[in-house]
Amino acid sequence: MAFDPASLKYDAAGLIPAITQDTGGAVLMMAWMNADAVARTLDSGRVTYWSRSRQAFWVKGESSGHVQRLIEMRVDCDRDCLLLLVEQEGPACHTNRRSCFYTAIRDGEEVEIMAPLAG
Amino acid sequence: MAFDPASLKYDAAGLIPAITQDTGGAVLMMAWMNADAVARTLDSGRVTYWSRSRQAFWVKGESSGHVQRLIEMRVDCDRDCLLLLVEQEGPACHTNRRSCFYTAIRDGEEVEIMAPLAG
Repeated sequence: MAFDPASLKYDAAGLIPAITQDTGGAVLMMAWMNADAVARTLDSGRVTYWSRSRQAFWVKGESSGHVQRLIEMRVDCDRDCLLLLVEQEGPACHTNRRSCFYTAIRDGEEVEIMAPLAG
Repeated sequence: MAFDPASLKYDAAGLIPAITQDTGGAVLMMAWMNADAVARTLDSGRVTYWSRSRQAFWVKGESSGHVQRLIEMRVDCDRDCLLLLVEQEGPACHTNRRSCFYTAIRDGEEVEIMAPLAG
């Protein structure tokens, strides 16, 4: 069946959450897409989110160089969430860490489990 | 620093998205939690979401037996998304598949890449 971005379920703001996982299996981040961002990502092979704060397309890495090359897009059973398998250039997180999920809860305490990348 | 579920950023409905990944690295599903569900999950070690459709706590696997044992909860840099590392009993998806992300977009077509588990 041909895929149509309009067939996904978007929230009241027209957005769908997109989870990004690198080819090594690490979950890097979660951000949002609208239907146009889904289409642009598939067309260009460069992951393109919708920035809720800037209300604009956000071509990941456009300014930082930390681009995400799309390997495969997957849709969940409810069609209301996306999983993006990517090749990540450098850190995914704006804190210069590989992943945004660098804080673990261990024995009730917040523990930083990942250091910023060098350089 | 002691972790306080109230320190997370919830949406207008009081919810935060939670991505669930199994110990083998597969992303299984994405669902939602409120602050009480976060606390219950940490206290019990059994992943407990908030069901938006039923407006009730959803102890994953309570009826199906397909429980998720929490290995570790992680918080992202913006504190508005959770990553749950779990041991998943059986399928995570209500379609009896291991993961909810069983549909890939390949060359513009939807392709099913995962079969339901036997039994």
